[in-house]
Amino acid sequence: MTERQTLRGHLPHGVQELFQGEAARRRQAEAALRDLFSRWAYGELIPPTFEYDDTLAVGAGPELRQAMYRFFDREGQTLALRADFTTQVARMAATKLFDQPLPLRCFYIGSVFRYEEPQVGRQREFTQAGVELIGANTPAADAEVVALAAAALEALEVRDFQINLGQMALFRALTADLPPDDLERIRQATDQRNPARLRLALDAAGLAGPRRALLAGLPDLIGSLEVLQEAMAFGGAVAEAAERLAQVYRLLEAHGVAGHVILDLGEVRGMDYYTGITFRGVAPGLGWPLLSGGRYDELIGQFGRPLAAVGFGLGIERALLVQTPQAQPPWPAPHLVVQGCDHPACLGLVRRLRQEGYRIEMDVLGRQGEELLAHARRQGCRHVLRCQDDGRSWLLGDEKGERAVTAHRLLEEMKTWNG
Amino acid sequence: MTERQTLRGHLPHGVQELFQGEAARRRQAEAALRDLFSRWAYGELIPPTFEYDDTLAVGAGPELRQAMYRFFDREGQTLALRADFTTQVARMAATKLFDQPLPLRCFYIGSVFRYEEPQVGRQREFTQAGVELIGANTPAADAEVVALAAAALEALEVRDFQINLGQMALFRALTADLPPDDLERIRQATDQRNPARLRLALDAAGLAGPRRALLAGLPDLIGSLEVLQEAMAFGGAVAEAAERLAQVYRLLEAHGVAGHVILDLGEVRGMDYYTGITFRGVAPGLGWPLLSGGRYDELIGQFGRPLAAVGFGLGIERALLVQTPQAQPPWPAPHLVVQGCDHPACLGLVRRLRQEGYRIEMDVLGRQGEELLAHARRQGCRHVLRCQDDGRSWLLGDEKGERAVTAHRLLEEMKTWNG
Repeated sequence: MTERQTLRGHLPHGVQELFQGEAARRRQAEAALRDLFSRWAYGELIPPTFEYDDTLAVGAGPELRQAMYRFFDREGQTLALRADFTTQVARMAATKLFDQPLPLRCFYIGSVFRYEEPQVGRQREFTQAGVELIGANTPAADAEVVALAAAALEALEVRDFQINLGQMALFRALTADLPPDDLERIRQATDQRNPARLRLALDAAGLAGPRRALLAGLPDLIGSLEVLQEAMAFGGAVAEAAERLAQVYRLLEAHGVAGHVILDLGEVRGMDYYTGITFRGVAPGLGWPLLSGGRYDELIGQFGRPLAAVGFGLGIERALLVQTPQAQPPWPAPHLVVQGCDHPACLGLVRRLRQEGYRIEMDVLGRQGEELLAHARRQGCRHVLRCQDDGRSWLLGDEKGERAVTAHRLLEEMKTWNG
Repeated sequence: MTERQTLRGHLPHGVQELFQGEAARRRQAEAALRDLFSRWAYGELIPPTFEYDDTLAVGAGPELRQAMYRFFDREGQTLALRADFTTQVARMAATKLFDQPLPLRCFYIGSVFRYEEPQVGRQREFTQAGVELIGANTPAADAEVVALAAAALEALEVRDFQINLGQMALFRALTADLPPDDLERIRQATDQRNPARLRLALDAAGLAGPRRALLAGLPDLIGSLEVLQEAMAFGGAVAEAAERLAQVYRLLEAHGVAGHVILDLGEVRGMDYYTGITFRGVAPGLGWPLLSGGRYDELIGQFGRPLAAVGFGLGIERALLVQTPQAQPPWPAPHLVVQGCDHPACLGLVRRLRQEGYRIEMDVLGRQGEELLAHARRQGCRHVLRCQDDGRSWLLGDEKGERAVTAHRLLEEMKTWNG
């Protein structure tokens, strides 16, 4: 019984609940992103919260698949809560959006669910927002999505961020002929930026010459266009991949966001998935990326309609953790507290004030005078209104006392109030 | 393999996905309600999507409990997707919101999940929006919530609706001393408006005299204040309950919404839960209520802090089904399609237009001339822009041809475009 009562009051590990000010801040962030994506001509998709496990598994690597919440419907099928949106968007693009001109520009905002050990900035339910640009495999498409990722962080008032931009096509070209075990050892050591392990992995794969030199150097090739010189000189698919990344970088200069972008050839995560550029947005002091994305030209075809695609997903809670300056949760204080009343004229004025956009609290506990003013003050509201003469005139009260106002005068005066 | 591929492309039964225009319409509805609730001084709560099954079961009747999606976390606890919001808000009010002045005014908007046979207007995942007014047991509180329910339907452009308003306290007072079996038979027959079954149930309970007459008449007591006369004459708790309902109705007249309200003493659903007024919003031609709500003064105490409460929950998808006139999903066509370009001045103009709030699509497929104009037209956009002289001048194209424009001139002209 005690344990049961404890459970009743407690939330499961790793999920959160937001109260008025925090909730308003989250909704503001969502609205800012919805507005931004819309200005870049992206349209929203709202997929269901759960789908068949088989569907959601299509785009998920082993780690994500391991982290999915699964359950059964009563027809015996296995369902899963979405662990990201990209697979759902891919399915929708392949099976539903035939009548749309290409490229498709889609965005999404909603909860995703991952069974992971909760830490600061990592919850089991969190809010992801992102875009997918589908049906265009060009440097301009790559650059648009990276520039939009930067604009998204700016829209969330994250000032201090960096986008690490890699090129999976380059790593793929360098390792295309290697056996899977060798390749994975090299990839892991590169990802971990561990020179000793990388040397051992290259030895084990029997690599020598320029290819070995380039692979051994990848983890340190971090900077601007100069880090691409060696790969450009390599020729073939490797040089092509480097040239593509250079084109994207130059477009990002034209977009005016290159100041946030660092080329990083050691970015080799998600190799099963990404086929071209890959990128992560990071902020100082946050142990997790704010956003991650890249080009994935092979996913949508798995749903029967081969289409190139590039996109990113952003963690809204993480972005709010590093908002600069840390925005104060806007506490939704009423503009005016109105003494409870049953006169139609008084309720009509309240209705009108609300139509004008004011936040009006009508007392329902029969409070009056000082008691009502104190209640208003506790909520950050300095004004109390009550009607006289059956709702034909009004008294506006504040800490200095009460004075008669007409409805017109009240509306004029409220325009001068802050908030 | 074939079956697996079929599953990949299909959604589970009873869940839906929304595309650009439909998604925009849903988000507009949510924003309209968020704005309305906020003007009535309600603050948003965002609870987690799942919680411990034990917690969510507290406020759920047997039908809702039966319809919940359950699964296990890896610590062996049973979790469940929320099937409504009220229990979560009750838990939060009892265990977290101690520092808030009473009454609390809370609202929520989000998905709820119920395992039920899908039909038009009944999905397994749907969007619920609602409010809870907590810590006030007064006629003014009851009336505020009913008036806000009517305002919510109006905000969603539902013109033709009715709110059936009952009083569970009256039925409770009439049946307080009956054995549970007798009571439930009477309640069911009343709810089904089945006079023959009701007569049998009253016989079985051995009821006679004025109490029997009043109970037998409840299903037909539908109308305005006159339906309360008999109960008022009854005296005691029955008359008190009728008087309370009359007060609420008179306040709804003052609120200007009584035209939508019908008193209905046969409203006896959710008896385990509701303790005072109960109400349902209905629309012609829709087989399910648009919204339902009422007073539930005993729920929050189950989480350790006894507080009176009244609220309602509304199904957004259902309201959109009966929107009058059926609003056309706003198709988010771009205002302008811009030919792909890598000149900073041109990208700078695009950035400025987006800052001004315009929806700008920048081509990423290298299309030009007629091809680009045709692409723009397919999306409902009549204008195409391209830069000349390295982004120092612009040509605006439409079906009549191209003409040179300055950035200033373009901005002036765009103000005159529709949409």
